[in-house]
Amino acid sequence: MRNLDHHTITQAVLDRHANTDNPRFKLIIDSLIRHLHDFVREVELTEAEWFAGIDFLTRCGAITDSKRQEFILLSDVLGLSMLTVAMNNDKPEGCTEATVFGPFHVEGAPHYELGADISNGARGTPCFVQGTVRDPEGRPIPHAKLDVWQSDEDGLYDVQHEGLAQAQARGMLTADEQGRFYFQSILASAYSIPTDGPVGELLRASGRHSWRPAHLHFMIKAPGFETLITHVFRKDDDYLDSDAVFGVRQSLIADWMRKDDGTYEVAFDFVLNAAK
Amino acid sequence: MRNLDHHTITQAVLDRHANTDNPRFKLIIDSLIRHLHDFVREVELTEAEWFAGIDFLTRCGAITDSKRQEFILLSDVLGLSMLTVAMNNDKPEGCTEATVFGPFHVEGAPHYELGADISNGARGTPCFVQGTVRDPEGRPIPHAKLDVWQSDEDGLYDVQHEGLAQAQARGMLTADEQGRFYFQSILASAYSIPTDGPVGELLRASGRHSWRPAHLHFMIKAPGFETLITHVFRKDDDYLDSDAVFGVRQSLIADWMRKDDGTYEVAFDFVLNAAK
Repeated sequence: MRNLDHHTITQAVLDRHANTDNPRFKLIIDSLIRHLHDFVREVELTEAEWFAGIDFLTRCGAITDSKRQEFILLSDVLGLSMLTVAMNNDKPEGCTEATVFGPFHVEGAPHYELGADISNGARGTPCFVQGTVRDPEGRPIPHAKLDVWQSDEDGLYDVQHEGLAQAQARGMLTADEQGRFYFQSILASAYSIPTDGPVGELLRASGRHSWRPAHLHFMIKAPGFETLITHVFRKDDDYLDSDAVFGVRQSLIADWMRKDDGTYEVAFDFVLNAAK
Repeated sequence: MRNLDHHTITQAVLDRHANTDNPRFKLIIDSLIRHLHDFVREVELTEAEWFAGIDFLTRCGAITDSKRQEFILLSDVLGLSMLTVAMNNDKPEGCTEATVFGPFHVEGAPHYELGADISNGARGTPCFVQGTVRDPEGRPIPHAKLDVWQSDEDGLYDVQHEGLAQAQARGMLTADEQGRFYFQSILASAYSIPTDGPVGELLRASGRHSWRPAHLHFMIKAPGFETLITHVFRKDDDYLDSDAVFGVRQSLIADWMRKDDGTYEVAFDFVLNAAK
């Protein structure tokens, strides 16, 4: 195994994996190697471009911390997140569709009682959110756990506000016996994903905008059901047809209604698929 | 652009790049997207596997700093580095072959006079290194700049020793009027690439060893010539045929001779290609 050229090297790398114990891991790593090698050959990547790629990933790593996830953002803008979600969520008719997880989820958000104001001081027009979690037969799923997160009227999540100590506009809720949930929050706004890092550079180099249509994030769990990671989008948003991360599903768009007092309300029911 | 499925999403992402200014960037990013999407579809990547991939890259980022470069290491073990090097260094007959840059180069290594001991206290059996830098016609290249780096007898580079303040076993030298260079250092040893990070996990999961045959790194620059990034390997090393990063070239193997006093010496001449 000396003097490998840019064709023979691919099989040489794959041959190293002959003793890999885990067949699933072997399938994945071998496929990744073949596709990455094909990419490098196809574009005839120069050494300077290779260095630029290493530098790009290094800077993605440097900007990533417990509150910033540039690798998820990268996967999102390359369409890899939505591709993976779409491929794995071919649910039966009637189940709520899934969409991207995104980079702004935080583990261990505060738990709120139903009806509470999860905005917790986040700036925005008040918005009341309600709905029911059901199974595919229409039966309520009692005590389903909802993890909700959203941006404020400036288009920022709490973790994007420097020095903010408490969670804002994110929280965990438990549906009632009839699968109902309801809480006070703020109106979601269209926002730009963070463009101050390497992914922003990539978007600018690509001539792409960085905007996402307004949405609420939900992750809903209940025993015996597939975890649902999804959004509820706002009807009439300018970016529904050009979401920077390709996540819009027509079935997830809701009418967020403006009330006479200037506040909003939105209702959305979720249908979880049975666990496989 | 709603309701993209795992087939239609690829073209949707490519369509976003319609306004990309730089045709070379467009070629590269579009090819990368196509190949990564094909990979995800081919292996039917699950969401859990996607999260594991994000976590892997995140941990590569977290362990990378000014002295540790896990992304280069990853590229090296996947064969992407050597593939890129091989593809870009199809030099004329007689020119010294290139090999991988590796993760252990440091910018701004100390400059030494010819004949100096660049080990600077690194542990190892003394070894004298000499040679000449020439052009393809055999003419010496006066004042060529050599950047040299190597591991010590424990198989570690200076940057891998916690708390070491000074550069050891690395330095810059300037060839003399006749293109000659010579310096004192230590014997290079076979070593394991770092396995305490994500790349180590990948090697273990793949059933691969992590060893590289003993070598000296050289980066040689001279006006009017292509920069040469290469190694000189030690004959008879156990790992010449299974280098963890696929970098061995038969033409780069030298006989490191043991002298009567137990020290070593090695001579190697470099031939730089004319700049394009």
